[in-house]
Amino acid sequence: MTAAAGFRASGTAVGIKSSGAADLALVVNEGPSRAAAAVFTSNRVKAAPVLWSEQVLKAGELDAVVLNSGGANACTGPEGFQDTHKTAERVAEALDTSAARVAVCSTGLIGVRLPMDKLLGGLFASVGSLAATAEAGADAAEAIRTTDTHAKTAVVERSGYVVGGMAKGAGMLAPGLATMLCVLTTDAEVPQPELDAALRGATARTFDRIDSDGCMSTNDTVILMSSGSSGVVPDPCEFAQAVEAVCADLARQLIADAEGASKEIEIEIVNAASEADGLEVARSIARNNLLKCAFYGEDPNWGRVLSAVGTTRAKFQPDELSVAINGVWVCRRGGVGEDRELCDLSDRHVHLVVDLAAGSETVTVWTNDLTKEYVHENSAYSS
Amino acid sequence: MTAAAGFRASGTAVGIKSSGAADLALVVNEGPSRAAAAVFTSNRVKAAPVLWSEQVLKAGELDAVVLNSGGANACTGPEGFQDTHKTAERVAEALDTSAARVAVCSTGLIGVRLPMDKLLGGLFASVGSLAATAEAGADAAEAIRTTDTHAKTAVVERSGYVVGGMAKGAGMLAPGLATMLCVLTTDAEVPQPELDAALRGATARTFDRIDSDGCMSTNDTVILMSSGSSGVVPDPCEFAQAVEAVCADLARQLIADAEGASKEIEIEIVNAASEADGLEVARSIARNNLLKCAFYGEDPNWGRVLSAVGTTRAKFQPDELSVAINGVWVCRRGGVGEDRELCDLSDRHVHLVVDLAAGSETVTVWTNDLTKEYVHENSAYSS
Repeated sequence: MTAAAGFRASGTAVGIKSSGAADLALVVNEGPSRAAAAVFTSNRVKAAPVLWSEQVLKAGELDAVVLNSGGANACTGPEGFQDTHKTAERVAEALDTSAARVAVCSTGLIGVRLPMDKLLGGLFASVGSLAATAEAGADAAEAIRTTDTHAKTAVVERSGYVVGGMAKGAGMLAPGLATMLCVLTTDAEVPQPELDAALRGATARTFDRIDSDGCMSTNDTVILMSSGSSGVVPDPCEFAQAVEAVCADLARQLIADAEGASKEIEIEIVNAASEADGLEVARSIARNNLLKCAFYGEDPNWGRVLSAVGTTRAKFQPDELSVAINGVWVCRRGGVGEDRELCDLSDRHVHLVVDLAAGSETVTVWTNDLTKEYVHENSAYSS
Repeated sequence: MTAAAGFRASGTAVGIKSSGAADLALVVNEGPSRAAAAVFTSNRVKAAPVLWSEQVLKAGELDAVVLNSGGANACTGPEGFQDTHKTAERVAEALDTSAARVAVCSTGLIGVRLPMDKLLGGLFASVGSLAATAEAGADAAEAIRTTDTHAKTAVVERSGYVVGGMAKGAGMLAPGLATMLCVLTTDAEVPQPELDAALRGATARTFDRIDSDGCMSTNDTVILMSSGSSGVVPDPCEFAQAVEAVCADLARQLIADAEGASKEIEIEIVNAASEADGLEVARSIARNNLLKCAFYGEDPNWGRVLSAVGTTRAKFQPDELSVAINGVWVCRRGGVGEDRELCDLSDRHVHLVVDLAAGSETVTVWTNDLTKEYVHENSAYSS
């Protein structure tokens, strides 16, 4: 958060989590620019902080983002929305700004009110700890963790400016977006419409192309803020690429740390008639539980790939489909190809290629295997 | 198979399965009627026997169905189709009919050719064992099992006639259809168009409304044959209800025996604006891995229900949604309802009700929980 100049951050434990771990993060843009853009979950059931932040971001400017773990504040009715409103107001008071310039993000269990006494009580400590140091940025990334085994940050430097980011998310990872919160900061001077375009392009090709378990959350939020404090006005293309690089780095970190996963599976659809076709096929494969179990068992069961492809509306002929698993073309033109015994699935990274033989588009989606540990983690406690 | 008069059946072990278990079933219609109807998987990647039987069924008449377990004969190219053709021809020779009147069904691993020497060699024993006894019917049901822990049959009797059925399927159960083979027989005298209508109506409300794991197979086939040997021409409504009763019974048996499942979950969507809306919402919930894990852990995590509902295009307002788990309204009007601790999830049967408050349609879909045993069973071996 603080790799880009013009930002202060903090991460503190205020008692929302019963474990006593850090659970409140604050990121403040010191300017001179306050331009900001955001994308939110496409789930129609949206948490209170998403409803709030969607309104706030309409103005295209932000002074601060406050994020809590330990509770999603989703499905909590009008009272939950009031809780979000109060949180933004209290942050605004402390920073001498208006609540309408403060975004709020929450993550954790759905359907439970936040302990507002603890949250509001802890805000003063949170504001008091704000700093522009690397440590303060790391603290913020730490405070948004839920089942993440480690904090996730990424930074890229370009000619005279920096784009940095932090993210959380370890389960419920699915397009549109993953179950994740992400805040990106840059000290480049970028007009709001350009921030918005860069962010939408980047998330569509990164966070929207990871699908750990097919489940879409109520709280997903990605916010990009520009302080302009470097004074550098970047080339729009270069800037968009920098934002995408940070998002891609964070997205891969999310998949690498997905709940209970033992494999990171790269699903590459080649020769699709369109990008939409490629995406539909890739997502259908990414959500096929039987295939995900097979990869967990290191079994190159390519029949399960074809049965997933067959459920889509994409353009293809069944007898033209080919499938490679880690370089071995186990299925050629809809029939048996090379010996499946040649596939080595012992590595954590699995590369699946499906050739639709219907065009020239290539689309890649990342997913995980389905493991006993995933079932354990998601059955053993409410999250 | 033999509960209805006019049918002979057999089930034998011909060596397709390395375990030596029964793997070849034969059902023969002795008439006087030979009317038949069928529905097939909506997967675009169809196994050779599906492609064959679709052609055969166009004539609306069948003399016999031959079914093997131990191999799906899917994604096996033109050679696989030739194997199916040869199987039908050999059965036709033995029964003194034409191959065009013999349907073929296969189930098992995708992407492997069938051991045709064993299959064809075993057909003579199979034909030789044909009998109209209850035991022969039970043998046929036994021979189509794959991971099913037991054979599945159902019979209903109506005024002067019988509808009977057998089915297999324990995983890859998803609408359109489940991974299943099912043969239904009746001694009622029913014209083919009426058979077809009864079968389509029944499967749409039974097999198409079970969704164990969201995966759709390449081989699903449901065949209904009428021998007319009772001489009874039934009331069309009563007959359709009888067929649906047999299908419903078999569908529940499939869900009860789904791979690794510890819960049977009845998802009832009430007050939907349309049947299509109710189905979309129910299927979205049935495919939510996080919720299915929660039920495995007996955790009434209703937030996961709402986040699944929110991914659909059905008509609803988020703040009008209510959810009951085993009779406890844990979510009312989009917010926190009764204490989730009141839910007792210890029973194998879980009843989930989602009130969309958008109309008056009710739709029910059955699914299972997602368990460590499911992952184990589907990772530990190729099927």
